[in-house]
Amino acid sequence: MPEISKKGIKMPQSPIRKLVPFSETAKAKGIKVYHLNIGQPDIETPESALNAIRNYDQNVIAYSHSAGNISYRKKLVEYYKHHNINITPEDIIITTGASEALLFTLQSILNAGDEIIIPEPFYANYLGFSIQSDVIVTPIPSDIKNGFALPPIEQFEEKISAKTKAIMVCNPNNPTGYLYSKKELETLKELAIKHDLFLIADEVYREFVYDGKQHFSIMNLEGLDNNTILIDSVSKRYSACGFRIGMMISKNKELMSTALKFAQARLSPPSFGQIGGEAALQTPNSYFERVLDEYTKRRNIVVENINQIEGAFCPNPAGAFYIVAKLPIDNSDRFCRWLLEDFSFENKTVMFAPASGFYSTAGQGNDEVRISYVLNVNDLADSMKILKEALKVYPGRV
Amino acid sequence: MPEISKKGIKMPQSPIRKLVPFSETAKAKGIKVYHLNIGQPDIETPESALNAIRNYDQNVIAYSHSAGNISYRKKLVEYYKHHNINITPEDIIITTGASEALLFTLQSILNAGDEIIIPEPFYANYLGFSIQSDVIVTPIPSDIKNGFALPPIEQFEEKISAKTKAIMVCNPNNPTGYLYSKKELETLKELAIKHDLFLIADEVYREFVYDGKQHFSIMNLEGLDNNTILIDSVSKRYSACGFRIGMMISKNKELMSTALKFAQARLSPPSFGQIGGEAALQTPNSYFERVLDEYTKRRNIVVENINQIEGAFCPNPAGAFYIVAKLPIDNSDRFCRWLLEDFSFENKTVMFAPASGFYSTAGQGNDEVRISYVLNVNDLADSMKILKEALKVYPGRV
Repeated sequence: MPEISKKGIKMPQSPIRKLVPFSETAKAKGIKVYHLNIGQPDIETPESALNAIRNYDQNVIAYSHSAGNISYRKKLVEYYKHHNINITPEDIIITTGASEALLFTLQSILNAGDEIIIPEPFYANYLGFSIQSDVIVTPIPSDIKNGFALPPIEQFEEKISAKTKAIMVCNPNNPTGYLYSKKELETLKELAIKHDLFLIADEVYREFVYDGKQHFSIMNLEGLDNNTILIDSVSKRYSACGFRIGMMISKNKELMSTALKFAQARLSPPSFGQIGGEAALQTPNSYFERVLDEYTKRRNIVVENINQIEGAFCPNPAGAFYIVAKLPIDNSDRFCRWLLEDFSFENKTVMFAPASGFYSTAGQGNDEVRISYVLNVNDLADSMKILKEALKVYPGRV
Repeated sequence: MPEISKKGIKMPQSPIRKLVPFSETAKAKGIKVYHLNIGQPDIETPESALNAIRNYDQNVIAYSHSAGNISYRKKLVEYYKHHNINITPEDIIITTGASEALLFTLQSILNAGDEIIIPEPFYANYLGFSIQSDVIVTPIPSDIKNGFALPPIEQFEEKISAKTKAIMVCNPNNPTGYLYSKKELETLKELAIKHDLFLIADEVYREFVYDGKQHFSIMNLEGLDNNTILIDSVSKRYSACGFRIGMMISKNKELMSTALKFAQARLSPPSFGQIGGEAALQTPNSYFERVLDEYTKRRNIVVENINQIEGAFCPNPAGAFYIVAKLPIDNSDRFCRWLLEDFSFENKTVMFAPASGFYSTAGQGNDEVRISYVLNVNDLADSMKILKEALKVYPGRV
């Protein structure tokens, strides 16, 4: 039997999915499982997006432009202008989710063996995409004690080598919910200029910012146009994960014409996702106001409850819909599995993502879990109650 | 300004798309351009597929399973059984087009620097996907004189090195239309066993087989289950290129669990493409009978006309909807560009794909073009007339 590839062996299993077999077993035993492990919102997709698809009136479902429909890209320019980001349709490649935007980005700017610096914990699939692209992630530890703020810039500088080509942040952050400030991004800008690095920001949670705070986009770092790359997606914004529509955006023309060659090789992004994504741009502000109001309530429930637990702690993050919480446990992989395999309270249990999967440094995140607050407030409150009961009896409690 | 990657520089421009700016210029001058350069069929997508999408009744467009909806994979098992291919839902990963199936395949089985053997001319994007995956394509020349039949097996054997991990064919072939026989595939099987190689077949044109001939699938090579990988797509089958739905299929469980890790990293294939693809499986045989009848007529028009031209030749291929034709020209890139820039007949011209882009050996295919017979018979006949007129006056005629 022929061997599989080294990168195939190295590809990590998703921290979100590796416990799925155990949740299936729990469900088979009749136990209700609250899924706080995944980033799949329960919010309804805007009507405009659904209707555009239902009203599709063509007879041939053809390839679109490899960079995506021009009508969609033109309207995206308006969307970004609304968010104080000034770009042209030529600065945008519509991709199959942010996933593909990340792959195009990594493959356009890094050679095999090159390095990309990312503060950890980070979105687990950044590591997978890096392995797929034969590039190396250099993590910089951020700290739960200050809410996972940007680590001191000296720590970045220390890790920069001749192989370092880029720094990437997710803002607001998955998994920590941390919202990077303009000031923090400006320190990264100076470093990018000094070492001639690309600066990549995954801003798919741009709209999910709470407590009246403002999101500052990497695209608004002045004088950095040739270095900045914006990664975006409609998945969370419009609760439309199944569209598989994202964007790679940059004003660096050489970069975009390179990325377009990758885009042309795979022909085009999905047609219906583009149709839905374009129509979703009509979504009224009231939709986001309602969503933000709902997520703020949800976040507050989680934060309050976690911090009531003795030995537990979580920051009060200003963005996205995730929280990384420190729990009084020996090992979060073991704990999360135990919740599914060996525990239930009133015939219910809860599923978290062990935070170890969001660190590339071995041994980190062992007493942390990522909690996605994607369920309604009642279910979330119930989940927190279950967590408290679980910690009373978990054999590995410390 | 930071440098872009070496692979970004190496990525070839698509032979199908590189002349698009010149066709735009021709159109701007009011010249009608017949597009025989692309694989975008004009055939209508089956009603069942369109209706399934129009009748979508969910409110949240969620991620699907990373391997694709189980309901779809179960029905695909029935589809394949119909084509004498016996597999289970676990042998299938639904991908974002055959493009992604090819990337998952290459990345699951080849290390950086490893080699894959492909008879040339071959589908141009195989080269792009190989560059993206840091692997090397070793071409084996096939010959227009015998219709681009499988080259003698000794030529494959000569090229096998310690780095060779796989052999890939497209059957029926894009760009040649050649239909590989069971006997030819069995010679590849022997080689795959002898050298423990993967054998990959891209069978996206399975249904497009003419003159009463039968398609033989790689999946039916006995005793080769751990070595065979089937690449498939709904794009051409149901004229649904915009769905972006393909499949990677193998009975090798280690391979499929590896590929699933790549699939999980990108979360899921497009939802609406899956819904449409699943419904398209209801397409009655009469649809394919009509399509085959139409394509047979189209092929005959092209083959007859090409072979009437002095100094021109094309085989009469039994599959797909492409023909590679040898023309009495100095250089096909120059000729195809000249057709768009400097020629018109009755205010019309025709666009072909220069065949050089389908060879990875430099200098090959310079007097060949790929003709996609994706237009109706009247437009095709008109296109052939234009070609004849063009060759009367082309300055580079030989």
